[in-house]
Amino acid sequence: MAAVYSAADTHLKQLAYQHILTVEQFTPEVLESLFGLAQRMDRQVETGHTEPLLANRVIANAFYEPSTRTDLSFQSATQRLGGRVISTAGGVQYSSVTKGESLHDTIKTIDCYADAIVLRHPTRGSAREAAEAADALRMSLHRPTPIINAGDGTGEHPTQALLDLYTIKDRFGANIDGLTIGFLGDLRNGRTVHSLIKLLAIDHCHVKVVCIAPESLSMPSEYVEFARSREMPVEETQDLQEAIGGLDVLYVTRVQRERFVAQEMDDLSAKVYGMPVDALDAQRKDALRPLAEQNAAQEYLAARDTYVVDPMMLSQARKNMILLHPLPRVNAIPEEVDTDDRAYYFRQVQNGLYIRMALLASVLDCLR
Amino acid sequence: MAAVYSAADTHLKQLAYQHILTVEQFTPEVLESLFGLAQRMDRQVETGHTEPLLANRVIANAFYEPSTRTDLSFQSATQRLGGRVISTAGGVQYSSVTKGESLHDTIKTIDCYADAIVLRHPTRGSAREAAEAADALRMSLHRPTPIINAGDGTGEHPTQALLDLYTIKDRFGANIDGLTIGFLGDLRNGRTVHSLIKLLAIDHCHVKVVCIAPESLSMPSEYVEFARSREMPVEETQDLQEAIGGLDVLYVTRVQRERFVAQEMDDLSAKVYGMPVDALDAQRKDALRPLAEQNAAQEYLAARDTYVVDPMMLSQARKNMILLHPLPRVNAIPEEVDTDDRAYYFRQVQNGLYIRMALLASVLDCLR
Amino acid sequence: MAAVYSAADTHLKQLAYQHILTVEQFTPEVLESLFGLAQRMDRQVETGHTEPLLANRVIANAFYEPSTRTDLSFQSATQRLGGRVISTAGGVQYSSVTKGESLHDTIKTIDCYADAIVLRHPTRGSAREAAEAADALRMSLHRPTPIINAGDGTGEHPTQALLDLYTIKDRFGANIDGLTIGFLGDLRNGRTVHSLIKLLAIDHCHVKVVCIAPESLSMPSEYVEFARSREMPVEETQDLQEAIGGLDVLYVTRVQRERFVAQEMDDLSAKVYGMPVDALDAQRKDALRPLAEQNAAQEYLAARDTYVVDPMMLSQARKNMILLHPLPRVNAIPEEVDTDDRAYYFRQVQNGLYIRMALLASVLDCLR
Repeated sequence: MAAVYSAADTHLKQLAYQHILTVEQFTPEVLESLFGLAQRMDRQVETGHTEPLLANRVIANAFYEPSTRTDLSFQSATQRLGGRVISTAGGVQYSSVTKGESLHDTIKTIDCYADAIVLRHPTRGSAREAAEAADALRMSLHRPTPIINAGDGTGEHPTQALLDLYTIKDRFGANIDGLTIGFLGDLRNGRTVHSLIKLLAIDHCHVKVVCIAPESLSMPSEYVEFARSREMPVEETQDLQEAIGGLDVLYVTRVQRERFVAQEMDDLSAKVYGMPVDALDAQRKDALRPLAEQNAAQEYLAARDTYVVDPMMLSQARKNMILLHPLPRVNAIPEEVDTDDRAYYFRQVQNGLYIRMALLASVLDCLR
Repeated sequence: MAAVYSAADTHLKQLAYQHILTVEQFTPEVLESLFGLAQRMDRQVETGHTEPLLANRVIANAFYEPSTRTDLSFQSATQRLGGRVISTAGGVQYSSVTKGESLHDTIKTIDCYADAIVLRHPTRGSAREAAEAADALRMSLHRPTPIINAGDGTGEHPTQALLDLYTIKDRFGANIDGLTIGFLGDLRNGRTVHSLIKLLAIDHCHVKVVCIAPESLSMPSEYVEFARSREMPVEETQDLQEAIGGLDVLYVTRVQRERFVAQEMDDLSAKVYGMPVDALDAQRKDALRPLAEQNAAQEYLAARDTYVVDPMMLSQARKNMILLHPLPRVNAIPEEVDTDDRAYYFRQVQNGLYIRMALLASVLDCLR
Repeated sequence: MAAVYSAADTHLKQLAYQHILTVEQFTPEVLESLFGLAQRMDRQVETGHTEPLLANRVIANAFYEPSTRTDLSFQSATQRLGGRVISTAGGVQYSSVTKGESLHDTIKTIDCYADAIVLRHPTRGSAREAAEAADALRMSLHRPTPIINAGDGTGEHPTQALLDLYTIKDRFGANIDGLTIGFLGDLRNGRTVHSLIKLLAIDHCHVKVVCIAPESLSMPSEYVEFARSREMPVEETQDLQEAIGGLDVLYVTRVQRERFVAQEMDDLSAKVYGMPVDALDAQRKDALRPLAEQNAAQEYLAARDTYVVDPMMLSQARKNMILLHPLPRVNAIPEEVDTDDRAYYFRQVQNGLYIRMALLASVLDCLR
């Protein structure tokens, strides 16, 4: 096979031996090259002939919480390219950590065994902490061990945002100027939509964003302002029915009952005790919970039912709209929608593989 | 090495990209070719020179319940042939599934990462459900992702039946006409014996089957009739002592205390409440349990002690009989029997590796 | 690359297809060759060009208790050399074993799938038991399946001792005669220091050992005598402050609160009931526990605080001393020490990889 990478891929050199912690690291040039590489990965996987770019490389999957999708996706991405996986198999928390080891020490240890570390952790900021640990260990060596953030709690999940944007461009072309992209569901807590709205802005996409959510789950203003400050218009509405006809992309997220309860707990705590819920002792928290659950129930059911994208709802959407979801979808999209040509969420899953292959090859400087 | 597969292996083409859900899919011709291939796998593993038939292939082990033996066997089979494994490591249930994802969606997701999926699941019928999900996803593509049923609750476990039959032929030759094959233990609930008796009939083996079990654990009539309708005589007895001298193969299964209790629960529920135990509420079930356990205890101990194959019992068996067990054996066969030449259950384990290698290579159309 | 192994590596032939159960199997000649091979592995990993010595080999990681560090280290060692890993992923105890399968049977099963088995087990003596099972299965074959003890409860953890000694020689040269090596912390229960003191004696190192521990956690006399009988002087003290200035190596181990409680339970049981604590029924044990915990608390805190190796303490140590720890370190060494050139514990982790690579290649007779 002839050389696969064009001169433009020199941009990917910028990723070599870099930690991947946040979407803010990317530039439009790097994104373009990365997506081009992902497209080549797609073709190679489809024809069954992938290049062993990661031969002799060992990637560690360090998962502090289980995540079947992300775990398997990185396992496959590594191995499709001939690399090897060492894996904690969801077991980190049962072992070193229960003996009281710090994240720093665990990362430094795994660093000794692997060429890159894919980290999934429930705590925001842990990916950056891990990167610091890896840097501290490798100060004296020329080759650092990159940390790839595969989700750190309410923080970031950059490879998800990359695959989301890639999927939109995979469908509408590299230039997506003029598209209208709707975000639906729990926009307050949805890590994936936060990262994607930022990435769209970073990529200088001239798209319009429509945020569709109940008031209590609306997009945090920091992200709205981030977008607007980069000349990306953002509209907000609660009415899916009204909005859907104008969308080219509808990105759905899960509405979780527990989020409403947490919101109610916050509100009640402020009213009753005059302090945030995190400042309460366990007893007081327990006392508030039944009332919070009752208050939350109605709002949750309303949101859940309002924001279901079923064939009826889809009938009002454009014929060439695409429907995205980071999965698991639970009730948000019924299975009967899967046969609709606009259902693009499993294509998203596939694209996740290609993006991760492209990213691993770039980060480990294995392009040739 | 010269071409390994003979012209007869064209039968294996029938397995290419097929789901392997039940023993009923197999024909005598396919079985013969598959067993021939397994024998070649045996020779290759023993000499340490296996062909990388599965190079560039990724097989997913999706285990919804742990099964060390089956899991490791498929992991080894894949890797002995140069393939790669991605694995949920018993973690499916802790992750996506607890977030409420359906089996359909999980399978469609894994389908995006792998070339074949080995599924272990506690629920009967789940393998077929997974196959439907994979087919739905791949409707538009020419290469579907085969699902291999590695045990679905009380349903089937086809690779176990294949390795069982292969082991018998490995010992007695391809033509086993005239053999007498005994099944011992819990024939009511033993998934492996159900599949094997069907496979013997499907393969048109002119063997006689002797079912040796306590009345409450006897072979369900559907399997007896399946065999008889294919001109395979089936005898039933409770007396191992009497039967053992006439056997060429003795296939032992575990007798589990819990099975007797369940049976008693059924009987008591019918007598006391006039309805099946599944229709009872939790409180009524709890009320019946102590009595059921007491009633079951004696029958369990009797069955357990009657059906132990120890050296004393073996002394009454033929010198060239072979003793099989799907393992774990617990109390059914004491360890002192292991040194007896008739102990064939670890040979069974080894054959499981060769059968799974042969099956994976066939299903992924990698023979050459 | 030219032939990597010198004529001296014929000593490693002695390890071919041997179980690795205890440090007592090693001789100075084998150690020298093994360490030479580990050094070559180090160079190969650093340059990114490892030889695929374990191609076509399948190694099973059978872990009956989780151990992230050891598990990942063996996974990486196998794969760095091109071998394949099959892994129970900490799941042995949830599967076959809960169905009542013996260690013997599980090992015989895994033996059918793998070329070597790395065993981690909480019970002392289980590695030897596993070796017996493997030998029993393979009586008729010429190639046995080696068991590698990766820690069996309070028994041995030979690869840890090997990497510890290798690290000392990696720093001070092959001839370490004249060094003074301090052991600090819980020397009574610390498996790693027991194995290392034995290995130093077996290797005929003319070093002096200083054991620094509170009285209740002092080095058991059997190890002290083992050393002295091989002309290796052993001093004992409780005073780290006094001892540290004379050391070339300080090997720190964790002081665990639970160990003090157990010791107090022993003492109290003898005083109150006149029998060992293991002979007590649960009720009596429970009755003693609060008093034991109270008595232990003070001693634990004193030991924990006395034996912290912080920058202040290090200021009294030699400039070229090295500080070792088997990890996790918890409170024993604060993170600020990591930037001190004497901090050698992550170098130990790295060396663990090289030692395990060297050992696997030797045991599987893959040197060429």
